[in-house]
Amino acid sequence: MYIVNGLKNNGVANPHAKVYDLRSDTETAPTEEMFEVMKQASRADDVFQEDSSCRELEEYVADLCGHEAGLFCASGTMTNQLGLLTHLRCPPHSVVCDSRAHVFLLEAGGISFHARASVSPVIASNGVHVTKEEIEANVIAKDLYSAPTKVVSLENTLSGMIFPLSEIRRISDMARHRGLAMHLDGARLWNASEETGIPLKEYGKNFDSMSLCLSKGVGAPIGSILVGNADFIDRARHHRKLFGGGWRQAGPLAAVAKYCIENVVPTMKSTHQLARRLADGLVAQGIDLQIPVHTNMIMIDTSRAGIDIQNDLLPPLLEHNIRIGGMGTKARIVLHHQIDQVAVDTFLNVVSQVIAAKADQPLDIPVRRMVSMMP
Amino acid sequence: MYIVNGLKNNGVANPHAKVYDLRSDTETAPTEEMFEVMKQASRADDVFQEDSSCRELEEYVADLCGHEAGLFCASGTMTNQLGLLTHLRCPPHSVVCDSRAHVFLLEAGGISFHARASVSPVIASNGVHVTKEEIEANVIAKDLYSAPTKVVSLENTLSGMIFPLSEIRRISDMARHRGLAMHLDGARLWNASEETGIPLKEYGKNFDSMSLCLSKGVGAPIGSILVGNADFIDRARHHRKLFGGGWRQAGPLAAVAKYCIENVVPTMKSTHQLARRLADGLVAQGIDLQIPVHTNMIMIDTSRAGIDIQNDLLPPLLEHNIRIGGMGTKARIVLHHQIDQVAVDTFLNVVSQVIAAKADQPLDIPVRRMVSMMP
Amino acid sequence: MYIVNGLKNNGVANPHAKVYDLRSDTETAPTEEMFEVMKQASRADDVFQEDSSCRELEEYVADLCGHEAGLFCASGTMTNQLGLLTHLRCPPHSVVCDSRAHVFLLEAGGISFHARASVSPVIASNGVHVTKEEIEANVIAKDLYSAPTKVVSLENTLSGMIFPLSEIRRISDMARHRGLAMHLDGARLWNASEETGIPLKEYGKNFDSMSLCLSKGVGAPIGSILVGNADFIDRARHHRKLFGGGWRQAGPLAAVAKYCIENVVPTMKSTHQLARRLADGLVAQGIDLQIPVHTNMIMIDTSRAGIDIQNDLLPPLLEHNIRIGGMGTKARIVLHHQIDQVAVDTFLNVVSQVIAAKADQPLDIPVRRMVSMMP
Amino acid sequence: MYIVNGLKNNGVANPHAKVYDLRSDTETAPTEEMFEVMKQASRADDVFQEDSSCRELEEYVADLCGHEAGLFCASGTMTNQLGLLTHLRCPPHSVVCDSRAHVFLLEAGGISFHARASVSPVIASNGVHVTKEEIEANVIAKDLYSAPTKVVSLENTLSGMIFPLSEIRRISDMARHRGLAMHLDGARLWNASEETGIPLKEYGKNFDSMSLCLSKGVGAPIGSILVGNADFIDRARHHRKLFGGGWRQAGPLAAVAKYCIENVVPTMKSTHQLARRLADGLVAQGIDLQIPVHTNMIMIDTSRAGIDIQNDLLPPLLEHNIRIGGMGTKARIVLHHQIDQVAVDTFLNVVSQVIAAKADQPLDIPVRRMVSMMP
Repeated sequence: MYIVNGLKNNGVANPHAKVYDLRSDTETAPTEEMFEVMKQASRADDVFQEDSSCRELEEYVADLCGHEAGLFCASGTMTNQLGLLTHLRCPPHSVVCDSRAHVFLLEAGGISFHARASVSPVIASNGVHVTKEEIEANVIAKDLYSAPTKVVSLENTLSGMIFPLSEIRRISDMARHRGLAMHLDGARLWNASEETGIPLKEYGKNFDSMSLCLSKGVGAPIGSILVGNADFIDRARHHRKLFGGGWRQAGPLAAVAKYCIENVVPTMKSTHQLARRLADGLVAQGIDLQIPVHTNMIMIDTSRAGIDIQNDLLPPLLEHNIRIGGMGTKARIVLHHQIDQVAVDTFLNVVSQVIAAKADQPLDIPVRRMVSMMP
Repeated sequence: MYIVNGLKNNGVANPHAKVYDLRSDTETAPTEEMFEVMKQASRADDVFQEDSSCRELEEYVADLCGHEAGLFCASGTMTNQLGLLTHLRCPPHSVVCDSRAHVFLLEAGGISFHARASVSPVIASNGVHVTKEEIEANVIAKDLYSAPTKVVSLENTLSGMIFPLSEIRRISDMARHRGLAMHLDGARLWNASEETGIPLKEYGKNFDSMSLCLSKGVGAPIGSILVGNADFIDRARHHRKLFGGGWRQAGPLAAVAKYCIENVVPTMKSTHQLARRLADGLVAQGIDLQIPVHTNMIMIDTSRAGIDIQNDLLPPLLEHNIRIGGMGTKARIVLHHQIDQVAVDTFLNVVSQVIAAKADQPLDIPVRRMVSMMP
Repeated sequence: MYIVNGLKNNGVANPHAKVYDLRSDTETAPTEEMFEVMKQASRADDVFQEDSSCRELEEYVADLCGHEAGLFCASGTMTNQLGLLTHLRCPPHSVVCDSRAHVFLLEAGGISFHARASVSPVIASNGVHVTKEEIEANVIAKDLYSAPTKVVSLENTLSGMIFPLSEIRRISDMARHRGLAMHLDGARLWNASEETGIPLKEYGKNFDSMSLCLSKGVGAPIGSILVGNADFIDRARHHRKLFGGGWRQAGPLAAVAKYCIENVVPTMKSTHQLARRLADGLVAQGIDLQIPVHTNMIMIDTSRAGIDIQNDLLPPLLEHNIRIGGMGTKARIVLHHQIDQVAVDTFLNVVSQVIAAKADQPLDIPVRRMVSMMP
Repeated sequence: MYIVNGLKNNGVANPHAKVYDLRSDTETAPTEEMFEVMKQASRADDVFQEDSSCRELEEYVADLCGHEAGLFCASGTMTNQLGLLTHLRCPPHSVVCDSRAHVFLLEAGGISFHARASVSPVIASNGVHVTKEEIEANVIAKDLYSAPTKVVSLENTLSGMIFPLSEIRRISDMARHRGLAMHLDGARLWNASEETGIPLKEYGKNFDSMSLCLSKGVGAPIGSILVGNADFIDRARHHRKLFGGGWRQAGPLAAVAKYCIENVVPTMKSTHQLARRLADGLVAQGIDLQIPVHTNMIMIDTSRAGIDIQNDLLPPLLEHNIRIGGMGTKARIVLHHQIDQVAVDTFLNVVSQVIAAKADQPLDIPVRRMVSMMP
């Protein structure tokens, strides 16, 4: 698992200059403009469902996704866990997902804690996404000895990699044929949609519920949204209250999230171009990619270049006000709307200096090479 | 249980004039000044524990309460449930609390859902608060057949009624003697403290954890805070993540909450005076109080006055832009910093008109009379 | 709660003579005849549902109760908890029951642990059974803040007291009208049925599931049975596996249970007569009854007689090979098919000697007086 | 997963002749002698811990395993789940085990249901057992995002394969160094111990708890036992009550289990020899083994021989009163003390007839070949 907060206590060198935080796309800071938007929002009570800004955001995103209703929540973990819990009505039961899924590895064991469901983690043998056949082989039938599968949970993007719509459709057909619910952890579905040009609605047709994060690439300060049909969202709202996720005057947060969808999401494609520029520059210097770069995330492996992330790379990056997360020879670099070309070029310069400093003997720099991700 | 959102679909008469929302003290609207405060806050990541405004609020409230650490969350339900769950480590186990407690009745069964704990609800025979003897008689010992008591949970204020510190101390002594954790649902502890002059710290000595709401009487748009010792708060933070309660750029919300503690809490005493003025005026017109008015909440019973809340009282109040919650002959009226004397006087006028309209035969108006609360 | 095993380490005086164990009606010993029955049973696998003795017992009891199917389990706690869990499909949810119910107080908090359900304990103001009105007043409606009621759980007999069929019918009508499931903890329904002459089937019409104990008054060494409709029992069987309650060659246990239903149950009425004889004798000597004696259980209060159970009563009873449970001035005496008139008369003699020994000043012995049970 | 009860509705050909049930080693029938043993047992109450036969068995097995205490339960699922639950005190948390483990795949999702723990299933790359390195790579550290590992659960034998003691020791050392509890699903540890000559005690040193089944190869009608230290077993006993696993007059079952340990376990080695004889005979006829045969279980793959289990093999076996479980080309054959050489030879004869009947063209029969097991 990535220690994305490995740098917690390391300040950047110059706290007054612009800081480039590439540890995660959640590391964006609300802008002045966003505070103006918040000020214009409604200020009523969202628990009583009386706040118009909240309602507007929920309807807006539900509509984008082709679903009936939406629920604005405090985090992507909350929308994922509420989504899964709302499907998982009656234990014993289980969920099938990619073995690398956020819902399985990075939500504190929520599936077992909240829904008391087992998880059947599936290894994606192509390294990018699980296939219909892999999912199907892991579906557990009802049986005296089993916790039968009730939900298939996919993730798009997964570490920045796009799940092909055609494969999603095959999986969805299989799931519906078997009476399984389809959930999408679409924390970064925005990136997939912007990159491929496939509207959210097209993805939406294949799922019974989708969780879309608003505080990752979208750039809003707080929030995530769950969409589904009206009855599903009603029940999820009850569960949100149970989780303590009902919030009162949430209108300003909803308004700024809608603003970000309208203003930040359209910039994602250029963020992806910057990511590829950075990835290509790194590969050109002998740094390997663990997985392909489809959108805004770059998973590097510096072992061939002989670079130790924490000792060799982090300190000089911090001197240039750039933060990334990583340990050993594996690092995660995530771009977002507050990362510009200056940051990318500075990053590449730092790396070339690090490599040069290391280079008593010349490194041979081969062509771009994939390194399969750790399960 | 009160249907506080009974008015959900009833608009007030004049949406452009000031609305007095007395359904709950959560029904406050953030002010312009508060948006200025938000703008000045830090904008870093609270999940990574890097946001200074969040940290400042947590330290500030922990210090006020004489506890080591604090955790800023989205709601009072979240801080209560995290507090209880963090104490309830190892089922089977149970919680003792007042049979009218918010944690038992109004948090969607969270104690059983999250912590799988049973609840021993205690009837407060004095109508105001449970006693040490009543709590002790309901403590369940460890036994092959039992879910032993592990936590005593008190609530202060409960429906506006102040829990006497002397009795809290007796209960706390008993609990510590028996190795039970003490939790306080102090959603409105601010009101108790302001009214009695007893500092939060004095209450704090008697509890292992306290939940203090920031979006009720305190007037912040969103939030509640849990305090306890450092290890306890660390574990609660883990549970907060599990609940999806970890939020990213929460600094502005934290800053405004601190501002409200400093600026709104000192006005509570005058709010309580207004509440008593309103209560006295109602009693003078033949309306009974279900429970005594200690702070900002008034629970009325209009049966003796022959008034049906929904048909007789709500419509004329709404014509004067005043909202309350209630059904049958029981209503709940809650005052806060955005309720002024105009509202109180208008309210009393409306009631006198309602009564006059009803009065074919003169009503006899006796002295103030308590009506015991529904269990 | 009663410490029924208070005597755990106290041996009786004469281990070779007949011991009368009145601590509980579970304290029966399998007879030689029963071992013959076991030997004749089928010896196949009940997990695979291939054992004919198990199947026979399940069909036999289901038929007696007018239900479709039965499930033979290791204990009454298992059949109660499986029954409730199988109804409680989708939290948040809650159960309404008598505040003295076994499922609430004496099953280790199972309702909250297994089904994560809250409990609304109802005080039976008549001291014998809860009424339709009391139950209904505690039903929780669906609401954002609530864990709505899904099951009404009754107990018959409760501490030996018979629940009137007419009131059960009223409650059942109300429950069905509201869409609530009806569960019966009928651990001792056999006693109620034998005493009143009302067939199990008549009770059965009012419930969606019933748990009937086989190792209490029925006298089988191990077991309890859950009845309901076929789909319900199928799902309960899955839950039984999950609990580890699936057992392999259980045929001999099933066969002996069926034998006991046919041979011991018909003797219950005379056991009840003995219980009344004992109760009357105790009352005649100035010992109070906490609750009325309807069947085989006697709850005494010796405070007026100045008798301390553990110090004054237990030792001389043990000298006569009689065991009961109790502490302070409260004791529970339970009769069953292995208690005869000798035991009853000996018991009464011991009490009269104890009282005589105590009697420096003469005790005034009034008429039979009820003492309301502790909640 | 194996449908071991695939034959549920298929009767054998001759119900009066001896039936050889090779579907599982749970498919043994209690003998006449065993009923004599039951009759001699104590008949007191095990819930009250007053039954001497139960106590004797518990002490006997605990002693064999070098542990302090034991708990006699209704099934191996119960002892496994109680063992894991008793270690897993405080969620969020997780368990590491072999991806093929019974506790993960065949106990109805109990780990997630009862303990709300996540599972990290480990793929045994050597096809027989997981290694220390594989376990360690899957241990999850404590982290805001994680459900940290608290228990390592091993299984010995796993599908009849013996887990080498040396590797168990390496895993145990690692686990203890990291503060993780070690649990063993030793349902068939008896077979491993008999086959290797390593005493249970030697295995026992490496585990904090072990579950040993009594109704599988040991041949008792019902039961399994959990061992651990005294405090652990006390807490497990409380959980057993919660599961409804407390049973009353269980003495006869305990006595017969002890009898079987003393009388059936010593015959296991010859059962293993028979198993190898059968396996060798099958291999000699061109049937592959999915995994090596170490003890009493044979997992065959008939695809190379062109045999469909359900259509080609089951009917002729049933005609000879032999039952096995399987579907497609995979079958599981399990030997136990009630399988003799006649059964083995008959089995081999049936197979050779099936193959001969299939053989229009002669099958080439190669040397014994392993086929890796399905994950």
